[in-house]
Amino acid sequence: MVSDEEFKITDFNEWFNDITQRAELADLRYNVKGIVVYRPWSTFTINKIFRLFEDTFDETGHEQVIMPLLIPEENFYKEAEHVEGFSPEVFWVTEHGSEKLEQRYALRPTSETAFYYMFSYWLESYRDLPLKTYQRANIFRYDTKQTRPFFRGREFYWFETHNLFETHDDSFAQAIQDMHITEDIVHLELGIPFIFFKRPEWDKFAGAEDTFAADTMLPDGKACQVATTHLLGQRFTKAFNVKYRDKDEETKIPYGTCYGPGITRIYGVLISVHGDNRGLRLPFEVAPVQIIIVPLYFSGEDNELLEKLCVDFASDLDKLGFRVKIDDNREKKPKERFSFYEMKGVPLRIEIGPKDLETSQVVLFRRDLNTKKTVSFTELFEEISKIANEFTDNLRSQADDSFESRLSTASTKEELRKELGKGKLVRIPFCSIDTDGKDCYAHLKAETEGAEIRGTRMDIEETPDADELCIICGNKAREYVYVAKSC
Amino acid sequence: MVSDEEFKITDFNEWFNDITQRAELADLRYNVKGIVVYRPWSTFTINKIFRLFEDTFDETGHEQVIMPLLIPEENFYKEAEHVEGFSPEVFWVTEHGSEKLEQRYALRPTSETAFYYMFSYWLESYRDLPLKTYQRANIFRYDTKQTRPFFRGREFYWFETHNLFETHDDSFAQAIQDMHITEDIVHLELGIPFIFFKRPEWDKFAGAEDTFAADTMLPDGKACQVATTHLLGQRFTKAFNVKYRDKDEETKIPYGTCYGPGITRIYGVLISVHGDNRGLRLPFEVAPVQIIIVPLYFSGEDNELLEKLCVDFASDLDKLGFRVKIDDNREKKPKERFSFYEMKGVPLRIEIGPKDLETSQVVLFRRDLNTKKTVSFTELFEEISKIANEFTDNLRSQADDSFESRLSTASTKEELRKELGKGKLVRIPFCSIDTDGKDCYAHLKAETEGAEIRGTRMDIEETPDADELCIICGNKAREYVYVAKSC
Repeated sequence: MVSDEEFKITDFNEWFNDITQRAELADLRYNVKGIVVYRPWSTFTINKIFRLFEDTFDETGHEQVIMPLLIPEENFYKEAEHVEGFSPEVFWVTEHGSEKLEQRYALRPTSETAFYYMFSYWLESYRDLPLKTYQRANIFRYDTKQTRPFFRGREFYWFETHNLFETHDDSFAQAIQDMHITEDIVHLELGIPFIFFKRPEWDKFAGAEDTFAADTMLPDGKACQVATTHLLGQRFTKAFNVKYRDKDEETKIPYGTCYGPGITRIYGVLISVHGDNRGLRLPFEVAPVQIIIVPLYFSGEDNELLEKLCVDFASDLDKLGFRVKIDDNREKKPKERFSFYEMKGVPLRIEIGPKDLETSQVVLFRRDLNTKKTVSFTELFEEISKIANEFTDNLRSQADDSFESRLSTASTKEELRKELGKGKLVRIPFCSIDTDGKDCYAHLKAETEGAEIRGTRMDIEETPDADELCIICGNKAREYVYVAKSC
Repeated sequence: MVSDEEFKITDFNEWFNDITQRAELADLRYNVKGIVVYRPWSTFTINKIFRLFEDTFDETGHEQVIMPLLIPEENFYKEAEHVEGFSPEVFWVTEHGSEKLEQRYALRPTSETAFYYMFSYWLESYRDLPLKTYQRANIFRYDTKQTRPFFRGREFYWFETHNLFETHDDSFAQAIQDMHITEDIVHLELGIPFIFFKRPEWDKFAGAEDTFAADTMLPDGKACQVATTHLLGQRFTKAFNVKYRDKDEETKIPYGTCYGPGITRIYGVLISVHGDNRGLRLPFEVAPVQIIIVPLYFSGEDNELLEKLCVDFASDLDKLGFRVKIDDNREKKPKERFSFYEMKGVPLRIEIGPKDLETSQVVLFRRDLNTKKTVSFTELFEEISKIANEFTDNLRSQADDSFESRLSTASTKEELRKELGKGKLVRIPFCSIDTDGKDCYAHLKAETEGAEIRGTRMDIEETPDADELCIICGNKAREYVYVAKSC
């Protein structure tokens, strides 16, 4: 028998497709290609993640707005790189009723061209800066790769912040704050480890001067981007004529940034990094049901007392603020019922049978460690609170260990291929992530079956020694870059 | 000088357009006709309203899902009345990149045809019933009437619940629960009075067997619908082949309902019913800023102490869970600063000057009553908590009084016209809200400059005496209906 982790590693795709169906997370049967339906069990947690970000943005001084979904074609064409990057993926609205519209409207593939259009009206004085806004939005991109629920589809949900600053330094400080927001929510609250990379010149957001992206590693050894923050410099402010008067009444052009944590994507990563071969393991705070009470009915026993006790436990736990349910299914065997809630990722299970009434104790199962423990009635609530407090820490710590074990290094192409084959995120000495490194990148990609250069680390400083050489061209290595297959 | 209420009545349109701009609630300058941008001050409260509904739906056993925005043309044409009602208003997506799509996709004008498509997969057994789902969604309708932010536009936000039941009675019970949800949130939490009417046959939702709608009255004497719940019978379940096996293994067709509180519309109504001629008055719980502290700086005084006191007050109030801000603008006069926050609808204002430091007291202004009171430092937090608790009750009670005063009766066409001229919601004896009353409705509308029959009351039972006659045709009046101009 393989361990949970091995199961996931050897067949992550099958695991993911299977759990998506069995746990009723997403439905692929809706009749628009590339677009899925998110079912209640996933939507509940997704909504919790929405709220985590909204509450954090309130604290970081970002103000929520609601921008239109439709973007006029004329806006879309104002920033040259942007339109080039996004045009092939845009859905166009062209008709209403039985009539043609006066111009085509894009379903937003991202909203710079809506926000900056309004910024030109909103920004007047240096007193308005920094201007920090955000919205929660459904986004449309005609992606031609295979649909995978949460990870890849033609409609997805994210937050996008759009911010203006007086100086380039201020805008960079915002990117750093965005990294902290990601750490606070994605890592600390949701237990997903990642590294923020500065993306190579050839892999930036269309219209950005610099792109910083948080990559985590999936169980199949592929890197997956969960959030990005971009320095837009003055590209969009110039394109949309966004200006302000500074203290000396001079007209200046502000610097823009945007941050985009992909919420549906983060959910996909959440279940992938924490899941095991029994199914989902959901962080305590965002689980739709936190505690499931499973009464074990015996024929000939006094089930009425048992039922009452379960109802009392549930009611008390509900009052303590826990999301609790009772499984009163008498038709299925206990083992089947246990497996079901383990598969759904319910953090805690209370098992209680008629015999337990006599001894005043229950069996408590915890999904973070997959262990059982007998607990007396009097100690139950205290034990549950204790587990609730440490549950997500345990998931995070296991995920951190797994992530750490995926970091590796290579100093030759042969080593790199070997480490990539083991599903690693591999550090190599490389000539350059600027335009002059693009040829080496092409060679690297060709020789590694499509691995990608994720960029240079933003969380720590690390520089190759003076004598280290790019493993592709053999010239001096200016930086350490990380390489992985992409999800 | 006119009273606040009179100002609003005589020029509600001007008041509304003015406050929308001055309080920075919505921006009409975005370059898609009929679509506006919602700015932070309104979006904050709109988001609070979203959460009120989500938290309530959790309690009523509705499960949140995320359905696609795009609806294939083929789904859309399955229910005959539905397609007839919505077709003229639909935006169509026809292209991606530079290519034609294989079929047109509608931007959802409502989502029955997406939900019922999935219900046909999800529903199997009587054990799955009731099936109660909901989503938060942006909705698109090519409305040709004049855009009014929050009230009328081509993109708006609502919740839509979609529910299936075994029997017609169960489905009707859901409609009643929807009315209670509306009462709990729209009336009790937001202070907006309304009456639920059963809409006449000719004014039902396209595809519904019965429509119940909550109407409030705006300051200009026009009725405004804030939420609807519809009995869909078996129309959509039949059209989409949604079936289940009952206890006896027989195949049955369930009954559907849907409920749609318009969130952006509710915000528009919120500011309209509570506002006065100083501007907005926002219920305490949903105001972006609940308490504004305005230090009154004097030259030559020790402003440092004053500043410190304000920061301390703000910090203490923040810890108590209030949303509090300090206005440290030294360039504007106190009166100007006071007016600004009154216009923005901030519930409470603390004014404090250097002299107050000596006497250890502040002036506390409350926007529900527009009154000032001197309060000692020691009593301040208690007084604020007291006002916070009763603030929304006061707004609601004033709005209830105003709503009550708009109810009227008429027993002749002449009286009806007179009462409508006074901006009333007028009860009249009427022959029928079934199809046989449609001619009388047409006459009534023509003779009242377009007034609408809102329907019969759902909150109380009232029936005309046996000898009362329809004020249009003179036949026996089967019911009392309410008539008003529509917003």
